[in-house]
Order: sequence, then structure tokens, then C-alpha cells
Amino acid sequence: MKSQIKRTFSNFFFEYETPRQVLVRNKRVAVVCRIIQMGVLAYIIGWVFMYEKGYQIVDIAISSIFTKMKGVSFTNISEKERIWDAADYVFPEQGDSSFVVMTNYIATVGQKQDKCPELPDGKNKCTSDAHCDEGKYKRHMTGRCINDTSTCEIYSWCPVEDDRKIPDPPVLLTAENYTLFIKNSITFRQFNVVRSNLVESVNQSYINTCLYHPKTDPLCPIFRLGDIVERSGFSFSEIARVGGAIGVLIDWDCNLDLSIRHCKPKYEFYGLYGTGKNEDKEEKPSLGYNFRYAKYYVENGVEKRTLMKVFGVRIDIIVHGRAGKFDIIPTLTAIGSGVGIFGVATVVCDMLLLYLVSKRDFYKNMKFKHTEIGEEKPTLPQSKTERDLPKE
Amino acid sequence: MKSQIKRTFSNFFFEYETPRQVLVRNKRVAVVCRIIQMGVLAYIIGWVFMYEKGYQIVDIAISSIFTKMKGVSFTNISEKERIWDAADYVFPEQGDSSFVVMTNYIATVGQKQDKCPELPDGKNKCTSDAHCDEGKYKRHMTGRCINDTSTCEIYSWCPVEDDRKIPDPPVLLTAENYTLFIKNSITFRQFNVVRSNLVESVNQSYINTCLYHPKTDPLCPIFRLGDIVERSGFSFSEIARVGGAIGVLIDWDCNLDLSIRHCKPKYEFYGLYGTGKNEDKEEKPSLGYNFRYAKYYVENGVEKRTLMKVFGVRIDIIVHGRAGKFDIIPTLTAIGSGVGIFGVATVVCDMLLLYLVSKRDFYKNMKFKHTEIGEEKPTLPQSKTERDLPKE
Amino acid sequence: MKSQIKRTFSNFFFEYETPRQVLVRNKRVAVVCRIIQMGVLAYIIGWVFMYEKGYQIVDIAISSIFTKMKGVSFTNISEKERIWDAADYVFPEQGDSSFVVMTNYIATVGQKQDKCPELPDGKNKCTSDAHCDEGKYKRHMTGRCINDTSTCEIYSWCPVEDDRKIPDPPVLLTAENYTLFIKNSITFRQFNVVRSNLVESVNQSYINTCLYHPKTDPLCPIFRLGDIVERSGFSFSEIARVGGAIGVLIDWDCNLDLSIRHCKPKYEFYGLYGTGKNEDKEEKPSLGYNFRYAKYYVENGVEKRTLMKVFGVRIDIIVHGRAGKFDIIPTLTAIGSGVGIFGVATVVCDMLLLYLVSKRDFYKNMKFKHTEIGEEKPTLPQSKTERDLPKE
Repeated sequence: MKSQIKRTFSNFFFEYETPRQVLVRNKRVAVVCRIIQMGVLAYIIGWVFMYEKGYQIVDIAISSIFTKMKGVSFTNISEKERIWDAADYVFPEQGDSSFVVMTNYIATVGQKQDKCPELPDGKNKCTSDAHCDEGKYKRHMTGRCINDTSTCEIYSWCPVEDDRKIPDPPVLLTAENYTLFIKNSITFRQFNVVRSNLVESVNQSYINTCLYHPKTDPLCPIFRLGDIVERSGFSFSEIARVGGAIGVLIDWDCNLDLSIRHCKPKYEFYGLYGTGKNEDKEEKPSLGYNFRYAKYYVENGVEKRTLMKVFGVRIDIIVHGRAGKFDIIPTLTAIGSGVGIFGVATVVCDMLLLYLVSKRDFYKNMKFKHTEIGEEKPTLPQSKTERDLPKE
Repeated sequence: MKSQIKRTFSNFFFEYETPRQVLVRNKRVAVVCRIIQMGVLAYIIGWVFMYEKGYQIVDIAISSIFTKMKGVSFTNISEKERIWDAADYVFPEQGDSSFVVMTNYIATVGQKQDKCPELPDGKNKCTSDAHCDEGKYKRHMTGRCINDTSTCEIYSWCPVEDDRKIPDPPVLLTAENYTLFIKNSITFRQFNVVRSNLVESVNQSYINTCLYHPKTDPLCPIFRLGDIVERSGFSFSEIARVGGAIGVLIDWDCNLDLSIRHCKPKYEFYGLYGTGKNEDKEEKPSLGYNFRYAKYYVENGVEKRTLMKVFGVRIDIIVHGRAGKFDIIPTLTAIGSGVGIFGVATVVCDMLLLYLVSKRDFYKNMKFKHTEIGEEKPTLPQSKTERDLPKE
Repeated sequence: MKSQIKRTFSNFFFEYETPRQVLVRNKRVAVVCRIIQMGVLAYIIGWVFMYEKGYQIVDIAISSIFTKMKGVSFTNISEKERIWDAADYVFPEQGDSSFVVMTNYIATVGQKQDKCPELPDGKNKCTSDAHCDEGKYKRHMTGRCINDTSTCEIYSWCPVEDDRKIPDPPVLLTAENYTLFIKNSITFRQFNVVRSNLVESVNQSYINTCLYHPKTDPLCPIFRLGDIVERSGFSFSEIARVGGAIGVLIDWDCNLDLSIRHCKPKYEFYGLYGTGKNEDKEEKPSLGYNFRYAKYYVENGVEKRTLMKVFGVRIDIIVHGRAGKFDIIPTLTAIGSGVGIFGVATVVCDMLLLYLVSKRDFYKNMKFKHTEIGEEKPTLPQSKTERDLPKE
């Protein structure tokens, strides 16, 4: 028993099996087969390894963004001069990755809680109090019909906002010249790499003077609002009037097998819900971007508010960070898959050989050995034959 | 030398090797083996390719969201009628993907910087000034004990907020009828596809009238707040009182091998920190959602503020976008792995044949050829035998 | 014809092919080969399966965050005592995952739309009106030079903000003692698992008293602001003065093959744009964090605002959730790749055998069978030989 274990063990260790093969001297099959195999090899090396970098492990960045708008607008509406600075036109104010730059607005100054007639919109005409059912859902009516406007009286912040006409040209058309400063920090946790969009060549003195341009200043983190809008396919005067949403994509595609200095951001701009330029308005409903906000104050003990319907450019900064680095696991997985595909190549070649070549029977006999008579008569001589052959 | 290279080269190109195989005629082993192989094949084709779409490359969407609440509430608190519109009850106002809809509040009107007694909460009683140590950490005390309230006097925004009792029923219970409009744009960069949740069938006229319903209107981007709350498992009256957080998931699972028209969003709703319905309050502490904010104003040269403790429904809109498209690399990787698994099947079959079948010795002899005498005596005749055989 | 199909079919089912192999008794080759194979096996089992958990399918969490700051600061600036609570110092107020805690500020009280001289900054001196060209881009000048300040008069919110000197020490240095409460809910959709950072051991009574400490209280969701700042590598007094950005990473790495109770968050803190401690100021420009916001009010019918230049700690809470669970597909893919790599091992062994061993010709003859005379003369006897052998 012990000796048998020993023998099995020594057999396992000192003997190794390797498949027996036929070397087929058939030009056509061989050439086709070599071409297939070299194609597979080229694919594995060229595509999987070189192009797709299949030997790399990939990490997705976690990122943080800080933004700052700069610029001042001057308006002169009905003889009232007014200056707008960043604290006035950016929402929210604290430098988020998603924010709105006001370019147009409808202000309703001095609203207070009161009763006042609805705005006539062509559909809500009334001629007597009977038309003004109290307590309807959307508007809270008092039940009276006001003769002056031929509309029902409602409880509301009064006077009611009149947003039937959007100012044209937009009030803050000079917003085109505002600049946006973006600070972006990304972290590849798996590789313990932290990186900022203020890369090596972007120092303080460069930041003070530069302005982003895809060709001449592709790394400058300061963007002119008008440029962002134009590059995303909008026309500034149109987006300034009704509003719109723009995505700013910061794309990091880093190969950490190279120096970290080559890991640089790329900026891209695109319109988020159609750019308003194509004519398929039916396909892209709900263009424009607006929201309302209120500035509250108290005057003579009465709470009032200034309601602003703000039209503006909403900017969503999106970071897409991806880094690759050599790692043994994906490398071996890729090699393993490659060997598998090599196996497919062999199968294809064999089919060629066994089914398409004229002398296929000959090759079949070379390749296969039969246990001739099946399982019924495995005679000892048969089994002995092959074994004895070398001793013949 | 040159001719040898030439021969090696021609050998490589005009000769190809294919493994020699034994065809084993053993019904039991063969049937088991074929079943295993067909199982592997079925798995590779059925599961990896058809179900998991292993032939596709996958991209994760980057997305942008814009939201807009609509609806008006009317309150009548101690004879004071008041209207609440979106500018009053949505935080923040600019249409973010994460926002709060106020449903209840505790307002402390006209706070100013002053000295006033602490609110008695059962633990902070004082009977003499000695109990009121000046400069304690959390409250900044003046050092006096006020007799009226039996609490210490503190520096604070006065009067101090009294949030010991949450209004019940919630003040803005009609918030149930507000509607939420969601605009969502997703981008699959790898495939250069941009898509909005306003898909082909959702045109302007449909948006004007529709309301989301999972069965009848699954693509309508307008949601009733009450519906969102109920579908996520909360009871509206409860969440309206103490607040709560709800996730709205927009799920895109697109197969870009089909027409882009089939790439549609699916909306799901779920409670984020327990729905408050199960009784395991001990397990899920800190239910409810509230925050404070202040509206500042100046009255008679004194800065004042109205402090609002806001209870509300916080809605987090989360986009989960995934698109697959045919690509040669994952296809070949899947095939490669499949061939590898086929190899496993062969190994299993061989074990069956060589260890479990009664005539295993016979099959062993068929399959293996020994280099009998080991490495000591490789005699020429031996090696010649096999080679000469065909010429016999 | 029919019988032929039948025979093919029965052949396919009752016959199976297995490769013929040579058992090579060559100690050196066999040992090397076995070591390589065992290395591959160890790699597949140890690394791919045990360490990298290659048998698991992975899902990335979608998450939702709610934050709440607590704490009060007391300031006494030029005899004016003032209390700051969370509603005063947190931006935005509604408990977002990204927010700013004000630690220092420059307030410009009572600004109104007016004309006033620019702030002298050393570069904008004027001696006559001629220096003050009207309508320049950044500032909107009236065209007058003011003698008192020797600067041009501009349209602006007046008085102009004077931010030449940042208060030192920072006004709200006691912000160090504020506490931050983080509520985080994550969802692994693929596994239908929802989990909150208030795990089993974190109950209401624990929350009321605990404070996060990486060693003693690693699961407490309440953090002291000063601790966060110190742990991320900043000095609090410095960050409080000029501002800075900190990332709080909540890391979930869950093995769902184990009990869900082992799925716990880990908190990490790091400075986002350099911590200001290393001396490479040139490399990391634009340290600090500040933004401006305005509190608007109306006084005697005139709109005014208090402009705040806020310096503060910006905290970005980032969730990195990843869960693995056993799944048959990655398991089989890993096995498949493993078998592929095994194939590589065999190829290496064969090369050893056929090219490096002294008796390589002998082994070559054992392994390969030639179709000697090439494709020209495939004679029947030749093909018959192998077939007839068993019957010899």
C-alpha cells in the first residue's frame, strides 16, 4: 500500500504528460491555419494589449469640484442703473459643481400676502362671481370676480407675477463676458493618487492671465461663459433669453504606467437637452431653463418678498476620471482568454482538415485511433499492441 | 545554416500540428461526457451570451437632472391667511437633483441678537445665578438666572426657538398635491449617445396633461408628491409631520444593438432611512428630516431674522444608466473563457474514463504512450519505431 | 442516407475523443513542469479566488447623504456681541453632502446701488478724469476721478467691499468644536440590499453621547469639525482663516457572502487641494476657499444688501460603496481563464522538452507523427497502418 502511494507520488512528480500530435504536411491547410493563428496572436497583442491596455487594472476617480464666477453686469432699466455681481447672479452661491448663472429675469417687487385678481391668460375669464368657485385646487379663490380685469380674485402673493412676456433682448446679455474658474481634484484610491486640474504647467502667474482655448490654452481652468455656450452648440443670445443647460465634462484618462505629469484633464462642452438649433421642437419639448426664487424682507412690519423668475445658463460640471495601471491579474486573464481563443483557431483548422480537404480520410486516420470493436471486446492483445510497439 | 533557417521557416508555414486523439467507444462515458459538454455549451450560449449579454461592452451614463415643483398651499393660522408657492417651499430653489419640499415648520419670527432665558427642557433648571456658569460650551450664558422661567439667561438670537412641539397635523398637508417635473439627460460617452427622459412618445401636449402612473403612464415625467411618498412605503401624513428622505431612481438599461427608441427610463421610489412603518425603531434611529434656515432682514436699523425649522420630504434623484453594445473584445473574451471551460469538461470526462470505468487500464493504454525505460536508455530503434510505422 | 445520419448521430453520442498523450519520464522536465503548474494553480486559487474574490460579482452602491451641523459661536467685535448658530454659518442650509462651514468672513453692511470710488489696490491710481475711461469691461466707471482716494468712481454696490486684509485670527475660531452628524444610506440594487451607516451597534442612546474616533468609536456618525480638519492634514487655525476643502470618504467594502452585519462603513479624511503644509506653493496655486453671498433687505424703500465674503471649510462627503457576492458567471470565467493559463504552462513545458533537453530528438519522435511524404503520396497502406495496428 505504502509503496503504491509512493509510486503514484513519484509518477506524478517525475512523469509529465504532453499531447501527441500529428504534423500535417498540407500546404493549403497549414497556411490557412497559420494565418488564423497569427491573426489571433495579432489581435491579442495588438488590440487587447496595446490598444485596450488589457494588462492594466482600472480605477474610476472620485472627485471634488469648486467653481467661481467673476464679472460684473450693468443694466439701465427705466432710468434705474444697476450693477450685478457674482453674489447677485449665481445660484447657489457657494461654488458647487452644478449652478445657474442668471442671464434674464422677471422681477416682481414688493409682493405681500393679499387678495388680488388673477392674471388674464385668455382662458380664465369671468363675468360674475359664480364663475369663481371658492377653494379650487391650483388657485385659492375668494369667490369674487373683479370687473377691471374680468378675472377671479385669489389669495396670493400680490401683485401676481406677470411672466407672459420674457424680456428680449435678455437683461444681462453681457453675461457673455463672465469668466468661470474651475478647481477640480480627483483621487484614484486604488493607486493612491491625488491630482488636481491645476497641473504642473498651470501656476499662479499663468492663471492670472490665461483664458481657456482648446488649441492654445487647453489646460487653463478659466473659461469665458460665452465660449462655453458657443462650444456646446447654443447661440448665446437665445440661451440668455430663455435659459438652457450645459454640461462641462472634465475628462481624465490617465495611464499611470507613465509619469503622473501626463495625466491631464480634457474639457468638453455639450448642450444637455438639445441646443435649440435643430428644428425638431416636437421631439425636444421643454427647452429653456428657469426657476423662481424669492428675496424676503419686512417693511413696516409686513413680510414682503421680491419674486424673481430667473432664466439662466445652468452649468453641470461632470468629471469622468479613469486611470489604468499594470497589474498581474488582468494580464493573466487576458493571456488566459487569448490561449482559449487559440484553441478556437485549432478547432477551426481541424474542421478544415477533416471535412474540407480531399484526402480527409487519410488525415482522419492519422489523427484518430479507434477502440475498434467498442466496449464489448477489449482484448488484451489490442491494449498491449500500442504499449509494446516501442519494444518491437 | 541558411538552408536550415529556410527549412524551419517552411516547416512552420507548410506543416501544422493537430493533437492525436483516441475515439473511445464507451456508451456510458461518452453520453455523460456529451451531456457535460452540451451543458457547458448551453451555459456559454444561453447564459453568458443571451442572458448576460457577454458579447456587449458596457458604458455607465453620466447624467444631468433638472427638477421643478408646482403647486400652491393655503394656510390659515390664527386668522392669518397665507399662500405658499414653490419659491417658498423648495430648498434649494434652482432645481437640483436633491431638494427638500417643506411640509411642516416651526417659525420663530423677529429674532434678534440679544439676551434671553433658555427654554426650559426639564434638565436646565436654575434657582440662583450660581447655576449659570458663564461661558459654558454649548450655550453662551450671561451668568444670570431668570426667575420667571427658572432657566439661565443666554446670549442668543432672541426669542429662543421653541421646537418642543411639532405642529400636528402638519401645516402644509396639501403638499400632497404638488407635482414634480423631472428632466433627465444622460450621455453614454463611449457610444456617443445622448438621451433625455422626454423620449419620443413624450411630447409637449402629453406633458401638459399627463401624470405618472407605473402602469398607465410609465414615461410621464410629472409626479404627484403624494404618489411618490406612498410608493416609497411612507404614509404621507407621517412624513409630512416629521420629514423623511425618499430616493427616486431613474433606471436606464439600454441595449444599443436595438433601436435607440427602446432605450427608456424606468422610475422607482424607495424610502432612504427606513419608512417608519416597521416597528424596529431601535434599529433605525434618527428618523425624520429637518433643518433650520433663516430669512434675514433689517428693521429700524436692527438685523433680525425669521428662523424656520423646516420639516419636509427630501427627494434624492439618482440616475442609474447602463448601456450595452456589441463589441468584439468582450465577445472574444467570453469565447476564450468558454473554450477554457470546455477544457475543464474534457478533464472531467478523462477522469471518468481513467479512474471510474471498469476497463480503465485498457483506455489508459490507448491514451498514454510511455517512454518506457525512462530517461536512461533512449535507444534509437525505439524512437524509430513510431516514425517508421507508416512505412511498414 | 438515413442510416448515415443515424450513424453520425450515434457516433457523436456514443463515442468521445480524448487526446492521446505521451508520459515523459524525465525528472528534470517533469519537476519543472509540475512546479509551473502548481504555481499556476496556486495563483488561481490563492490570488484570483481568495484574495481578489474572483468568484464574486460586484455591485457599486448608489447612495444618499444627509448632514447636520451643530454648535454655536460667540463673537465680540467692536463691542458688538453676536451669536452664530447653524442657520448662520452653514451653506447651503438643507443638509447636502457638500457644504461649507463659515469660519471667517468680511462683512460689508448696507451696500446699495450707487456711485463710489474704487478701492485703491496700488494699480488703479488716477490723477484726472481722463484716466477713468467710461464703460471699461470689468468695472463700470462714471468717468470721474475722486481726489480723496485717487481712484476712479464706479457704479457699484456701495460702499465697495474691502477684502485686502483677511481677519486674523479668524472670527469664528470656535468652529473647531462644532459637530457634524452624517446620515448615509446606500443601496446595492443588484443584490437588493439597503444599508445605513447607523448600523446595528449604533442606536439612539449611543448617538446621543458618542464622538467619532478612528480607534475607540469608528462607527459613531458624529464628528468634531476640528478633528476632521486635523485628520485631513490641515492646521485648523490656518484653514479657518483662508478656507480649504476637505473630502470625507465613507468607504463601504462589503462581502455579502457573509452576514450583512459585517458590512460597515469606514471613514477617511483628506485635504482636497493640498493641505497648505508642504512648501510647494508654486505647484499648488489657488489654496484657500471663499465665496461671496448677499443678504438682501429693503430699508426706507431702498434695496440694500449685506455682502459677506465667506471663508470656510468646505466638506465634500463622498461615498465609495462596493459589494461582492458569489455568482456563477465570474466563477466560471475565472476558471476558464485559469485553464487557459494552464495551457500556457503546458506550452512552456513542451518547449523545455523539445528544445532544451539533450534527448530532445527522442521526445520529438514520441510526441509527433509525421505525414511523411507530404501531400503528394498519401497511400492507402499508410493510412491503414495505424488503423490496423490494434488487430495486428
